[in-house]
Amino acid sequence: MPLPAAFIAELSALLGDGWRVDPATREAHASDDSRGHQPPEAVALPSTREQVQAIVRACRAHHIPIVARGAGTATTGAAVPVSGGIALSFSRMNRILDIRPEDRCVVVEPGVRNGDLQAALHAHGVFWPPDPSSFESCTVGGNLATNAGGPRAVKYGATRDNVLGVVAVTGAGELIRAGGAYTKCSSGYDLTHLLIGSEGTLALIVEATLKLVPHPHAQAGLRAFYRDASAAAAAVSRLMAQPVQPAMLEFMDKRSLALLRHNGSAVPDAGAMLLIEADGSVDGLPDTLAALGAAAEGDGLIDMDVAQDGIARDTLWAARRALSPALRTIAPGKLNEDVVVPVSRIPDLVAGVEQLSADYALPIVCFGHAGNGNLHVNILYHPDDPGETARANNALPEIFKLALSLGGALSGEHGIGLAKRDFMPQAFDAATLATMQAIKHALDPDGILNPGKVLPEDCQAKC
Amino acid sequence: MPLPAAFIAELSALLGDGWRVDPATREAHASDDSRGHQPPEAVALPSTREQVQAIVRACRAHHIPIVARGAGTATTGAAVPVSGGIALSFSRMNRILDIRPEDRCVVVEPGVRNGDLQAALHAHGVFWPPDPSSFESCTVGGNLATNAGGPRAVKYGATRDNVLGVVAVTGAGELIRAGGAYTKCSSGYDLTHLLIGSEGTLALIVEATLKLVPHPHAQAGLRAFYRDASAAAAAVSRLMAQPVQPAMLEFMDKRSLALLRHNGSAVPDAGAMLLIEADGSVDGLPDTLAALGAAAEGDGLIDMDVAQDGIARDTLWAARRALSPALRTIAPGKLNEDVVVPVSRIPDLVAGVEQLSADYALPIVCFGHAGNGNLHVNILYHPDDPGETARANNALPEIFKLALSLGGALSGEHGIGLAKRDFMPQAFDAATLATMQAIKHALDPDGILNPGKVLPEDCQAKC
Repeated sequence: MPLPAAFIAELSALLGDGWRVDPATREAHASDDSRGHQPPEAVALPSTREQVQAIVRACRAHHIPIVARGAGTATTGAAVPVSGGIALSFSRMNRILDIRPEDRCVVVEPGVRNGDLQAALHAHGVFWPPDPSSFESCTVGGNLATNAGGPRAVKYGATRDNVLGVVAVTGAGELIRAGGAYTKCSSGYDLTHLLIGSEGTLALIVEATLKLVPHPHAQAGLRAFYRDASAAAAAVSRLMAQPVQPAMLEFMDKRSLALLRHNGSAVPDAGAMLLIEADGSVDGLPDTLAALGAAAEGDGLIDMDVAQDGIARDTLWAARRALSPALRTIAPGKLNEDVVVPVSRIPDLVAGVEQLSADYALPIVCFGHAGNGNLHVNILYHPDDPGETARANNALPEIFKLALSLGGALSGEHGIGLAKRDFMPQAFDAATLATMQAIKHALDPDGILNPGKVLPEDCQAKC
Repeated sequence: MPLPAAFIAELSALLGDGWRVDPATREAHASDDSRGHQPPEAVALPSTREQVQAIVRACRAHHIPIVARGAGTATTGAAVPVSGGIALSFSRMNRILDIRPEDRCVVVEPGVRNGDLQAALHAHGVFWPPDPSSFESCTVGGNLATNAGGPRAVKYGATRDNVLGVVAVTGAGELIRAGGAYTKCSSGYDLTHLLIGSEGTLALIVEATLKLVPHPHAQAGLRAFYRDASAAAAAVSRLMAQPVQPAMLEFMDKRSLALLRHNGSAVPDAGAMLLIEADGSVDGLPDTLAALGAAAEGDGLIDMDVAQDGIARDTLWAARRALSPALRTIAPGKLNEDVVVPVSRIPDLVAGVEQLSADYALPIVCFGHAGNGNLHVNILYHPDDPGETARANNALPEIFKLALSLGGALSGEHGIGLAKRDFMPQAFDAATLATMQAIKHALDPDGILNPGKVLPEDCQAKC
């Protein structure tokens, strides 16, 4: 539906060269890292929160959808403007406003890239824990919208655990402020955490106060190889049940290891691997590493080695990060989901996925954040093969069904977006979905913020 | 207003001996640890979530207020039935349903006492971090309602940071489920954290999945004495800016120390004290303690000693816990607030409080959770002295104004309840309060859950 002339005139006057209707700019805001594609009618590039507020109010007056956008690295279609309307890019609101190491926090605009923020924090001896594999390109705003995680979450928490406050514009066009530069609060409703992970459907975050953690003085990694996934999963349970917290605890299945070998890594032919990272003080690190190593030992352990120096560690983690793109060398098509299960159910999840791989005659590669029970399950297929494509699409709901049957959730860090929206009624009963919808209605009464995302359509229609 | 006969008949049939209208039972549910007092018209003691749901639905049909209640240790009037209606006590829903150390979580009913839960967890080598000083009597449900904290929050977080999921009955009488036995989730709106700290005004939590932490193998404490509060506050900043996390970091001002001495503790005549606790592995603890000790050193440090063994530590902490009741020995009246400020602003808070103490000619004692910037500010007065009472009541808003002017919040762990409700418009702008009110309306459309609490009255009237 084309935009009304009065609306175009208003936003053009408001934003100047921050208002774009040219096809190239629209096309550049049509996709994220999912398979979805739909150019917005226009792209708004506000520079201030006042402009964001004015945009939302104008959209509300004209019933025009707004899809907020960071770097477009979402894997779920959350940033695809499937209902038309405008894309609102935060690329011009990318300032780091106040680094406060003495209060262990930093105040930022949403458009700053995660990697740029970490670089700026480095000199102050602190970091912001969320470390998605896209950290070099993704923005903090996108991290907030999806409750992004990464390997460090096992020790330091995901995004929601690392935000102290937000300033945001609701779908009603109101500027709200929640939380602040303090780590403890019992003063009214927790709007901060409600907005984290809401994928731009409740409010647009225009400023966030992020919790910082001092850099550990020393880090070291262990690689432990196991006979099979079940032995590795048992080790994960042992590691999580003892008091020394790993700084990362990553799992890779047999197929992931084959991929690493294929890419030139010196990896033995094992059934599964754990990457275990320790951090702490220089003097304390050997004890920490010894405690983690002792917990990693047990039935089915084939081999374990230590990557003490930075270079070995970096190689190790570079290989881990390269895994996701490397999957394309097995098959060009990939359905990548990031289900979560209780840590004790990882063996059942891995066994269930292996069974699905056999049932649907497709390679399925599992790796990820085992310490959080959050595994990336990648169904690989050739999109030009209709049989494989159909089997992949049929296998996907079975993965979700499996995770939910084990007491888990649809997504640990990617979010729901469009891709998993229709599975929400399997994950939540009608009363809970209706409560989510009531909250959506409370913050976005006209449903203009990222319509069609997160909540299933029949639930949205009832609103 | 007396309860309708039809309603009484319905609840009496539903609850049997769990329905009480006798004056003694009503009187026993009239107060909390604030100065408020108002007996409910009746007390409901449900044993199941189905009963809770039926009670809420009956109350909704008859527009009868429900005040949920744990042990009644709230300091804010949150559990006082000021609007009449019924008190709903969770004392019969006090089971520990499932201890799952391998998933680092436990599933409980709300009526279980914090101390009883910790005792049951002990054998499994795990604990639940929230440790309010009332832990022996307060319930988990009350902890959830107020986002309770305690000394351990500096390292392990407050209640909101340690809840993975809830099952709850909304004010609409619907049973909702959010979160579960996993530590990472990006699947729909975060209802779990929204309910924590909402003081029974949005929904009644009937089951919670709590995050557990393995017991550290070793603990030790440091006592550091400083020339003045400002020197101690500077040490707090140094302690929080280095990577070794204290397990507790408590502050006591000059008056608190005088009180300890008066009670027989061997405490030097210093301007302020920090209690610093380290925890970790047996082998790693000396390094941890050394790092904390080094950070505690600096200008104004008078003396520092180590309490290595358990008995010394326990004595230390018992003295800390005895402080709050001991205040009554100075004056029988006490206005106890628990404001929060950014850690770097603690010196300004303490200096500001000292100024208010002089201005209003009343002793004001400050102590508390310095690592979180969360200090208990106790205005002491004689209630039978009208002049002192008036000055105490006039000083209170100035304390809040001070905390807010330093970028802080009204409460870190006690909540708002009735006592701080009228200060909410100073802490939040109208748009943010209206958004909270819209959420209240979404979950409790008829306003039957704990009416008159948390949100200011004119905000509630607009609903």
